[in-house]
Amino acid sequence: MSLIVQKYGGTSVGTIERIRAVAHKVAAARTRGDDLVVVVSAMSGETNRLIALANQISEMPSPRELDVLVSTGEQVTIALLAMALEELGCEARSYTGSQIRILTDSAHTKARIEAIDVERMRADLAAGRVVVVAGFQGVDGEGNITTLGRGGSDTTGVALAAALNADECQIYTDVDGIYTTDPRVVSSARRLDRITFEEMLEMASQGSKVLQIRAVEFAGKYQVPLRVLSSFTEGNGTLITLDDEDDMEKPLVSGIAFNRDEAKLTVLGVPDVPGVAYRILGPISEANIEVDVIVQNVAQDGTTSLTFTVHRNEMKKALRVLEGLQESLGATSITTDDRIAKLSLVGVGMRSHAGVAARMFRALAEHNINIQMITTSEIKITVVVDEKYLELGARALHTEFELDATV
Amino acid sequence: MSLIVQKYGGTSVGTIERIRAVAHKVAAARTRGDDLVVVVSAMSGETNRLIALANQISEMPSPRELDVLVSTGEQVTIALLAMALEELGCEARSYTGSQIRILTDSAHTKARIEAIDVERMRADLAAGRVVVVAGFQGVDGEGNITTLGRGGSDTTGVALAAALNADECQIYTDVDGIYTTDPRVVSSARRLDRITFEEMLEMASQGSKVLQIRAVEFAGKYQVPLRVLSSFTEGNGTLITLDDEDDMEKPLVSGIAFNRDEAKLTVLGVPDVPGVAYRILGPISEANIEVDVIVQNVAQDGTTSLTFTVHRNEMKKALRVLEGLQESLGATSITTDDRIAKLSLVGVGMRSHAGVAARMFRALAEHNINIQMITTSEIKITVVVDEKYLELGARALHTEFELDATV
Repeated sequence: MSLIVQKYGGTSVGTIERIRAVAHKVAAARTRGDDLVVVVSAMSGETNRLIALANQISEMPSPRELDVLVSTGEQVTIALLAMALEELGCEARSYTGSQIRILTDSAHTKARIEAIDVERMRADLAAGRVVVVAGFQGVDGEGNITTLGRGGSDTTGVALAAALNADECQIYTDVDGIYTTDPRVVSSARRLDRITFEEMLEMASQGSKVLQIRAVEFAGKYQVPLRVLSSFTEGNGTLITLDDEDDMEKPLVSGIAFNRDEAKLTVLGVPDVPGVAYRILGPISEANIEVDVIVQNVAQDGTTSLTFTVHRNEMKKALRVLEGLQESLGATSITTDDRIAKLSLVGVGMRSHAGVAARMFRALAEHNINIQMITTSEIKITVVVDEKYLELGARALHTEFELDATV
Repeated sequence: MSLIVQKYGGTSVGTIERIRAVAHKVAAARTRGDDLVVVVSAMSGETNRLIALANQISEMPSPRELDVLVSTGEQVTIALLAMALEELGCEARSYTGSQIRILTDSAHTKARIEAIDVERMRADLAAGRVVVVAGFQGVDGEGNITTLGRGGSDTTGVALAAALNADECQIYTDVDGIYTTDPRVVSSARRLDRITFEEMLEMASQGSKVLQIRAVEFAGKYQVPLRVLSSFTEGNGTLITLDDEDDMEKPLVSGIAFNRDEAKLTVLGVPDVPGVAYRILGPISEANIEVDVIVQNVAQDGTTSLTFTVHRNEMKKALRVLEGLQESLGATSITTDDRIAKLSLVGVGMRSHAGVAARMFRALAEHNINIQMITTSEIKITVVVDEKYLELGARALHTEFELDATV
């Protein structure tokens, strides 16, 4: 008998029919003998409906009151799911974040979980009941309702699994697992049976938006085995585990991530003196522009060039900041390019294998794809290329690193 | 500076526009220097929408889960109203029944308030904030969400006023006060400036459904001055007070109540022995049929007849019960009539004045209205007549007892 935390997102509980289908899934797992804690989001569309009401009243509604308002979305779902379970003869109890005492800080609309009181859940589980918990919400030390920010139901699921020391946290979603790359771009993309937390983080931050990054970090930190699987089809999904629990021969590369939301800015010909990077990126950060990749090359003629990428929507804003700095920096020119794409190899296997980067660059060169920038981390190699090469590059790398499905 | 509890019903907060209007009313009162606690219902239609969702899942949803579900209705309104108040620069804090600790018993969907923790409200009021509280809901000793049953927001308002020892509890609704009788039937009906709790109870139970009976009982018990007034028009409404606080010369009769929802059943020719009433009404009560008026006349020939009224929808059910009893009772026959109406004079003034009943019966006789049944209480005289005489009788009595508006 295992203790499983299951989390169902807004699409999975988007209609009464789907809530009923979730109840059947939960009841079936219960019949197999597992103890179950089920976390649910608001029915899809509901959170947006509530926020629209608030915005009719105020452009900047009080964050405290926004949390009171928006938290009703999950409260509706927990009640309906508990009813549906009882209708199937499966005893259940629903709890809001306040009731189960998911204690958070007081940062309304983006609160962080500090502690969870598991006593009540344990009592219900011992009595044979399924515990249904509202995702995305908690309560601060003063009894104010808080929310964890959008998509925070994943975090609730992982946090409950950690607090209860559950055997597994299952995240039900509308995809059936994590793929080696986006199947819409590379048709031979393959579902992974396993992936490590670190790889998942690198994949997620690149746009494989299946799970909330925070939830994955949380799961990694508290060593909660996390499984991503589909609400709508059968299957074992993808298990996200700690590296050292993985006794299989790790493949060199687990997946290819990519993203074409970014634009690149380059400051050319800056005198190569200490503090240049700070003098450029300090004002960018003060303007609240988020920077992703940063590359600075060693200079030869006493000058250096610094290139960084930002979200495409912020390129113009960043350019204005740089133009204001150009004279004081002594930069010869500033260039921008919003027709770029980022392409990454991800895999813990590459940590202990030399030559992965070289093999990647060769594969791209064989397809005449010019590399504009390169950055690397322990388990990821990222290149920036012209966006027109994105699909070609992704497919080339997918094949080169033997990720193609062998159907 | 007074402490006022205001309660706004579902129609008064039915749209964003109306919530904004309520915020303006509250902010204006605040500007006049009053301390304010505001109780709100769910936006009109919302509770029914939620119940419909539950009924799609189960014909008999778990009462505990129904309370979790339905209580979201008021939670949405408190958040929106608090936002609207802050938008007007009026500091406000919203609270659910759980947060403010409106402690109830565990009778889900019809819980009764046992205690209220006023500390948090007092702190907010002292800090100059308007306190916005979700009506209709509470929390039991175990932390389960409860609701007070439909329309229970009035009760919340009165209970908060009692707990806070407020100067007045104002119930905002879609009528501008309590009238001497239904203005749709008697065009000369007049708004009362004052009415006593007892009179209000007699009026309410007869179908003048402005206030929840329970709220009025509660207000009477805890001596909370209650005022009914309109959300949509200006005016002082009707103040409901204790009799002995009323130093004005009380009019003989305060109002005329009536109702045509009932049907009458008569058991004729039953041997006049002790226990007859019980042997008839016991089985009716066991069949869960609510009985209103009961009349039994003294017998002359060793037999007696007992007549009682029930809701029209339950007449057939009651008849079947009586038919099953007829033989064992030795009744000669059973008759029914669903074309009746109840007409009542209400007024604490009649306690100390003889002849009110006689004057009532004369006025009806002058209009050739036959009286089928009569029952009396200290402050009410009720007659049952053919329903076709309802309007005529109501107008006759309204004039006879000088209730007509003198415009």
